[in-house]
Amino acid sequence: MAQKEVAGRGEQAALSVSISMPSSPSGAAFSAAMKLPEQDPKQGKSFRSQPVTARAAEQCGHRDKRFDPFKTWSGRLERQLSNLRGKPQDLDCGGGGEDQDGEAVPAVDRYFDALEGPELETLRVSEVSILPEDETWPFLLRFPISSFGICLGVSSQAILWKMLADSPSAGYLHVTPIVNLALWSASIAMTAIVSCIYLAKVVLYFEAVRREYHHPVRVNFFFAPWITGLFLVLGAPDSLAAGRPPVAVWFVLMAPILCLELKLYGQWMSGGQRRLSKVANPSNHLAIVGNFVGALAGASLGMEEAPMFFFAVGLAHYLVLFVTLYQRLPTNETLPKELHPVFFLFVAATSTACVAWARINGEFDYAARIPYFMAMFLYVSLAVRINFFRGFRFSLAWWAYTFPTTAFSIATIKYSMVVTNPLTQSLVVFFSGISAFAVCVLSISTIFHAFILRDLFPNDIPIAIANKRRPKLSKFIVHLRSIGSDTKDTEQALEV
Amino acid sequence: MAQKEVAGRGEQAALSVSISMPSSPSGAAFSAAMKLPEQDPKQGKSFRSQPVTARAAEQCGHRDKRFDPFKTWSGRLERQLSNLRGKPQDLDCGGGGEDQDGEAVPAVDRYFDALEGPELETLRVSEVSILPEDETWPFLLRFPISSFGICLGVSSQAILWKMLADSPSAGYLHVTPIVNLALWSASIAMTAIVSCIYLAKVVLYFEAVRREYHHPVRVNFFFAPWITGLFLVLGAPDSLAAGRPPVAVWFVLMAPILCLELKLYGQWMSGGQRRLSKVANPSNHLAIVGNFVGALAGASLGMEEAPMFFFAVGLAHYLVLFVTLYQRLPTNETLPKELHPVFFLFVAATSTACVAWARINGEFDYAARIPYFMAMFLYVSLAVRINFFRGFRFSLAWWAYTFPTTAFSIATIKYSMVVTNPLTQSLVVFFSGISAFAVCVLSISTIFHAFILRDLFPNDIPIAIANKRRPKLSKFIVHLRSIGSDTKDTEQALEV
Amino acid sequence: MAQKEVAGRGEQAALSVSISMPSSPSGAAFSAAMKLPEQDPKQGKSFRSQPVTARAAEQCGHRDKRFDPFKTWSGRLERQLSNLRGKPQDLDCGGGGEDQDGEAVPAVDRYFDALEGPELETLRVSEVSILPEDETWPFLLRFPISSFGICLGVSSQAILWKMLADSPSAGYLHVTPIVNLALWSASIAMTAIVSCIYLAKVVLYFEAVRREYHHPVRVNFFFAPWITGLFLVLGAPDSLAAGRPPVAVWFVLMAPILCLELKLYGQWMSGGQRRLSKVANPSNHLAIVGNFVGALAGASLGMEEAPMFFFAVGLAHYLVLFVTLYQRLPTNETLPKELHPVFFLFVAATSTACVAWARINGEFDYAARIPYFMAMFLYVSLAVRINFFRGFRFSLAWWAYTFPTTAFSIATIKYSMVVTNPLTQSLVVFFSGISAFAVCVLSISTIFHAFILRDLFPNDIPIAIANKRRPKLSKFIVHLRSIGSDTKDTEQALEV
Repeated sequence: MAQKEVAGRGEQAALSVSISMPSSPSGAAFSAAMKLPEQDPKQGKSFRSQPVTARAAEQCGHRDKRFDPFKTWSGRLERQLSNLRGKPQDLDCGGGGEDQDGEAVPAVDRYFDALEGPELETLRVSEVSILPEDETWPFLLRFPISSFGICLGVSSQAILWKMLADSPSAGYLHVTPIVNLALWSASIAMTAIVSCIYLAKVVLYFEAVRREYHHPVRVNFFFAPWITGLFLVLGAPDSLAAGRPPVAVWFVLMAPILCLELKLYGQWMSGGQRRLSKVANPSNHLAIVGNFVGALAGASLGMEEAPMFFFAVGLAHYLVLFVTLYQRLPTNETLPKELHPVFFLFVAATSTACVAWARINGEFDYAARIPYFMAMFLYVSLAVRINFFRGFRFSLAWWAYTFPTTAFSIATIKYSMVVTNPLTQSLVVFFSGISAFAVCVLSISTIFHAFILRDLFPNDIPIAIANKRRPKLSKFIVHLRSIGSDTKDTEQALEV
Repeated sequence: MAQKEVAGRGEQAALSVSISMPSSPSGAAFSAAMKLPEQDPKQGKSFRSQPVTARAAEQCGHRDKRFDPFKTWSGRLERQLSNLRGKPQDLDCGGGGEDQDGEAVPAVDRYFDALEGPELETLRVSEVSILPEDETWPFLLRFPISSFGICLGVSSQAILWKMLADSPSAGYLHVTPIVNLALWSASIAMTAIVSCIYLAKVVLYFEAVRREYHHPVRVNFFFAPWITGLFLVLGAPDSLAAGRPPVAVWFVLMAPILCLELKLYGQWMSGGQRRLSKVANPSNHLAIVGNFVGALAGASLGMEEAPMFFFAVGLAHYLVLFVTLYQRLPTNETLPKELHPVFFLFVAATSTACVAWARINGEFDYAARIPYFMAMFLYVSLAVRINFFRGFRFSLAWWAYTFPTTAFSIATIKYSMVVTNPLTQSLVVFFSGISAFAVCVLSISTIFHAFILRDLFPNDIPIAIANKRRPKLSKFIVHLRSIGSDTKDTEQALEV
Repeated sequence: MAQKEVAGRGEQAALSVSISMPSSPSGAAFSAAMKLPEQDPKQGKSFRSQPVTARAAEQCGHRDKRFDPFKTWSGRLERQLSNLRGKPQDLDCGGGGEDQDGEAVPAVDRYFDALEGPELETLRVSEVSILPEDETWPFLLRFPISSFGICLGVSSQAILWKMLADSPSAGYLHVTPIVNLALWSASIAMTAIVSCIYLAKVVLYFEAVRREYHHPVRVNFFFAPWITGLFLVLGAPDSLAAGRPPVAVWFVLMAPILCLELKLYGQWMSGGQRRLSKVANPSNHLAIVGNFVGALAGASLGMEEAPMFFFAVGLAHYLVLFVTLYQRLPTNETLPKELHPVFFLFVAATSTACVAWARINGEFDYAARIPYFMAMFLYVSLAVRINFFRGFRFSLAWWAYTFPTTAFSIATIKYSMVVTNPLTQSLVVFFSGISAFAVCVLSISTIFHAFILRDLFPNDIPIAIANKRRPKLSKFIVHLRSIGSDTKDTEQALEV
């Protein structure tokens, strides 16, 4: 259905444009497209995505230039090369305008205006994408930063199974350390692959990365690679990590986290548009969790003060985020209206805070119990609302929502080491089972979507919103689209 | 005055209906009332509350059927019985329509739209009650869940006097344990009576209970019976409680608290309409205090982990609630605009948290002092604004606002046991005196209202709001009512 | 530029008035001004500030009566005196009307409506001042409560240098205690001078003080004198403070802080218009910091419970404020849109909380590290946004923004005493250097503005807003002003 709608949308977009310029023959339209970038470069971009210009592009050369604005080297590099060769280029092929466009990322308000859904992942009916919606984009453009969620999910499983193998309170389970080794190796491989691909995206499609970075929800996933790194440090099999990993690794991983935090938290407090009362979303927990995981990893490596620094920063900001999310301010535009898997991230911060504090402090005291029991309450509170899995389409981001359950299982193991009794030991088995089950289900879903349905990486709409809204045209599109939709949708669209 | 207004309102409502159907003779109006439920069952209900239909009801049979929609068994049971007897019934007496109505509880927005006042207890001028406002309803319908406030007040006094008798720092007062025994017995009796009556209401008028449960302020009082139970456990005289009460009692009392919390806090975080930024109100403290009282009672019974669980849950949610209430978000529609006795509940959570922590931790440390001193500041801060008792009508809910002062007195006794000096000993006497005085004043007021004025249980308007607003009629009613009101009220009404 | 605008504004105001009463000769206008106070006393006030009435005032007597409404004794005292002398007075000199005016302070909404800027210090274009904007007011009227910021800055420096001289971890710096003595003496002198001048203002222009007290930002500076006093207690040179200062001094300083807190926090929680979600502003930190400084000073004097009381109160309210400021609620009307030196106050509360806790608890434990590292993060977070010093006009209030950096330096010294290593010792030097540098720069700026530019105390516009907005006149003024302004400003003004 979603596939169909996307296709339908593409047709309508084409229709709208052909109506807005009814009598222009192909050539005139093409020259119009060539001129428009001077007036409004964004309009130009989307015009180029129309069949008319596509045909023109084909006539002009063999390369599809519609994705050029997102390419890092497009134009700039080639122009330099051709300038070396003494040949003026791109003048008649519509390749100009990238450089000046390259600067402009949509303002944060545009993301809220143009997108909808709990992860701001769907284009509103009144908007048009600046990339062709009716065909599959280049793979790298479709490869989102949230893919690192897989690494988070698998590497946290590796830690869980390491804990299960090591913990005396789970000793009766006789878990073999080989599971940890296997999972850890898998996550190393997975992380390497995902990192390489995303690095390629950074190199080749920097504009796309920039747009993900400015996306209010997506930006939180930029913490994921570094948290994954910390998970790999924490989950390293004892057999391999004969000596502890060098402390330098920790600093290398925490540096980007600190920089991202300075940027993101600073925006909350003092920035113009990205005020917390507007952008607060459960995915912000990813931006908090890094502190606690970093504190835990640092304490595991024998440091004292630096972990405490991150713990303090995490605690203060978690407090703010927790209150803000619980309040559900009406200005929190991205907060999912109803329950959604993203809410499981609530469990992540409290669980990791608990384990981190127990590690820093050296014992699982009352201060560690408070976040632990809080995590338990939140977990149960979410779990009893069981029907939240209905009606949501599978998304790669779900992987990020498995690691909270894993983190809670780890905290439960820690807790059962202090309070060892059949109840806590059952809790360990129960929650570890749920966590492992969730990862299995997601693995199968992912493989199914990747290899059977081949839709694991759909077009990444959020990066393709136009920088400005075109008032008249969009109204017209709403009208056109409303014809095909059911009555209720129409009414909603007209209200927009 | 309030009585008069209610009566006046009833007349106007009657007037409005007779005007909206000016020329219909009694019979036609009656048949209209009979038909209306099909179109808009709520309208039908309120029509039935008019004199015209009342007369019709009298003609039809001896039983007043206007309260049937709130009855649990009404229609359903009788119909079953009469079906057994082979007699069709209720067909010509307008008793139909209850079953389908029974499902519908007003949406949360309706409570905010239709009611006003710090406890959302008064009908707005633009609204009509679906139950007759001009006569006294059946006793059970007028018996609100907030009646458990009396039990809270008396049973917490029992604890206070037990502490005064036991505490070494208050030893010079020579308080006899008999006061505790008397108060505890009284609260046992009171709790039994109130519970029985409310149980009868649950059985006989389940719809009324359901509507109280959906009332944004009233729902918090559903915690009161269980907190009272915990108070009774804590306040049990030493002579009676030779052995500690069995731990099972604690679990029985905490189970409903946990369920209510899962429901209520879950609504704050993930529910649609009942977001905390909208429903936050000092009465929410009742929903928090249960955790701390439960933690205290659990720790008193010798448990360790379960009390800590509730303490952690209480702490996290108290934090959120405290910040939210202090901010006074403009979206907090139920927050009293000005000072009101309900604000004393602010003192309750901090006081009980202090005592609970001191008990869990085994000593009155800095972590216990922080909530204690916070409670003291809040107490003083409220007390210096002394004129807040002016202009408020006595209400049963006030009883719930005495237990915070009692809880603070108990915390003061605990504190004076650690820091024993003339100042803290004077504080004990001073605050215990205020608390006892408040309970005495309220007891006298309650008896006065119950037996002299006979208005202790006025019609419980909040349960009788219509599910939908009737736009045209209500405007007309506003107009009609405005004629009788003073100018300022008129202007307000027209603005609605 | 600002000077010029003020002057221009004054002319326009005069123009607007002469246009609103075009044909009145001097005498008629004067009598109108005399009559108007009965109808709208505030209008009368501003009319008196016109040249026409000024001339009349000159004719009437030698004393400039335009500032009389702000004078404490004006009219009242003189009338009493002259009544003693048996002479009716002020009848024909327009001195009447002050008494009834004296009661009226602008409502809090007026401050938001009439003023703009991060400190609500500039008159909006649509408003007129009730005092003449085109000439220099009496010195006392221009002497704001924020002048105590200088005392805060210098006296906190005295503490810093005392710490540097005393601390073993900074021993290698060989700081002489004479610096502390000099700074402390300077701050004693400065505090005495500023206090005397402000006391004179209280005595002579009580109305102006009252208006500062009702100003949502300015009111926080009323904590400054008492915090300065605490700083002087803490920074007293060891040579002078042979014995500790008597505990009574602490109580004398904390009493007004407690009273102000009861007033201010009470307004946040239960007041009508001054709800925290509206007035929250970084300057509120001044209202919090007093608690921590008081706790520190009290603990230094050997007390135990009273400091803990203030620490608890400070902690609870800091929590609320921290969350509220971080959220940047859209209703927070006074929150600076962009970065501003006032944000440094964020560092103040956490730093002082850290030092206070370390002192109360007797050791720099984890609980002290959390606020310390939080302060460090906030400091860095603000410092990396280095361009916030651009585009802001120097203001006396800046002095208040130096003491947070000093407080953080002191916390760093405390920290380096526990974790002594080259890094922490370098941090001490680094942050102390920044703090001292900031104070030097501000001292030079202040001297430059005071003696060279002679504009250290510009007209204190915020106290001169009219109590009511005059709808028609103000629109007209907007129109008039817009002629002289650039187009963008005009558009903004028209939108108002």
